[in-house]
Amino acid sequence: MDEREPARRPGGRSARVRAAVHQAVTDLVGERGYGEFTVGDVAARAGVADTSIYRRWGTLEALLTDVALTRLNAQSPMPDTGSLAGDLHAYAAQVAREITGPDGLAVLRLTVALSNKGERGLRARDDFLAERTRFVQAMLDRAAERGERPPDVMGVLDHIMAPMYIRVLFGAGPLTPDYIAGLVDRLLGQA
Amino acid sequence: MDEREPARRPGGRSARVRAAVHQAVTDLVGERGYGEFTVGDVAARAGVADTSIYRRWGTLEALLTDVALTRLNAQSPMPDTGSLAGDLHAYAAQVAREITGPDGLAVLRLTVALSNKGERGLRARDDFLAERTRFVQAMLDRAAERGERPPDVMGVLDHIMAPMYIRVLFGAGPLTPDYIAGLVDRLLGQA
Repeated sequence: MDEREPARRPGGRSARVRAAVHQAVTDLVGERGYGEFTVGDVAARAGVADTSIYRRWGTLEALLTDVALTRLNAQSPMPDTGSLAGDLHAYAAQVAREITGPDGLAVLRLTVALSNKGERGLRARDDFLAERTRFVQAMLDRAAERGERPPDVMGVLDHIMAPMYIRVLFGAGPLTPDYIAGLVDRLLGQA
Repeated sequence: MDEREPARRPGGRSARVRAAVHQAVTDLVGERGYGEFTVGDVAARAGVADTSIYRRWGTLEALLTDVALTRLNAQSPMPDTGSLAGDLHAYAAQVAREITGPDGLAVLRLTVALSNKGERGLRARDDFLAERTRFVQAMLDRAAERGERPPDVMGVLDHIMAPMYIRVLFGAGPLTPDYIAGLVDRLLGQA
C-alpha cells in the first residue's frame, strides 16, 4: 500500500498507466455497467498487470472512486464571466456537455453506484458532492460580492443540476440549449 | 414463450410465485446492485425453479422490467384532493415515501439500470416515464378544468421529482416534509 506512486510526471510512465486504466474503467462501465467487471478485466483492457492496479489503488472500489472524481472534476473548471447569469448559463451548459458527452452517462452511473460500494464509495460520493457544492458556492459568493442576489447553492443543485442529471440517467429527452437556458432563467427569475 | 401465464388468480400459485420472485429481485438489487445476480440467484432466493422464471419472463431483463414497472406504479395511485396544491403536495409526499421506503433506492436504481439493458429495458423505461407523465398530466388537467392554472408536466418532473430522485440516488440529504413542501410551493409560485 505504501508503494502507491502519485502521478507526478505528466507524460511519464505512471501518468500513462493511470490514463490507460482510467479509460479502461470508463469503457467497461459504459459497455457492461458497474459491478460487471473485475480488476483483471480492467488490467487486460488497459494493457497493464493486475498487480500494477492493486499496488496503486488497493481495491476496485478505490479505483472506481478515483475515476469518478477525476473525470467529474477535471471536466468542470468553474466559469467566471463577471455576472451571475453569465456564470450560471456557462456552468449549466458545461455540465450538460459533460454528462451528454461520450463518457458522461458512464460517469454519472458510476457516481450513483458509489452509494452502493461500502464506506470508500460513500466517502467518494460525499467528496464529489462536497466539491461540487464548494465550487458552486464560490461562484454564488462572487455574485453576492458584486452586489447581485444569487440563489442558494441547493437551488442550483435541485433546479439546474438535478433535472439535467435525471434526464440523462432516465434517458428522458435531450438537453437542448433552450431547455438548459430555461432552467437557469427560471431559477434566476425567483432569486 | 407462448407458455407464459399471466397472474390472473390473486392468491393462486401463479400470484404467489410472482410475488416471491419480485421480492427476490428487489432484495438482490438492494443487496448486490443490478447486474450482480443471475436468474439462478433469483430462483434460489424465491424458492422456485429456474425454468419457472424463464417460462414466465423469458429473460432477466424482462423480469427486471416487470418488477420496476409493477413497484413504481402500484405504489403511486394519484391523489385527487380537489385542489392543485392539495394534489401536488400529496403526490410529492407519496413519491418521497416510495423512494425513501425499504425498497425505494433499489427500485430507483433499477429504473436507471434499465436504460443500459437493451431494447426491452429501454422500452420499460419509456413505458414507466410515459405512464408517470400521463398520471401527472391527468392531475394537472383536472386542475385546469376547475379553472386553476397548473404548471406543465415537465415542470413537475424537473422541479419536484428530479430533485427528490437525485437526493435519494446520490444520498444527498434527507427528504424532510419542509423540503418536499418547498419544492411544490416553489413550483406553484411560478405557475
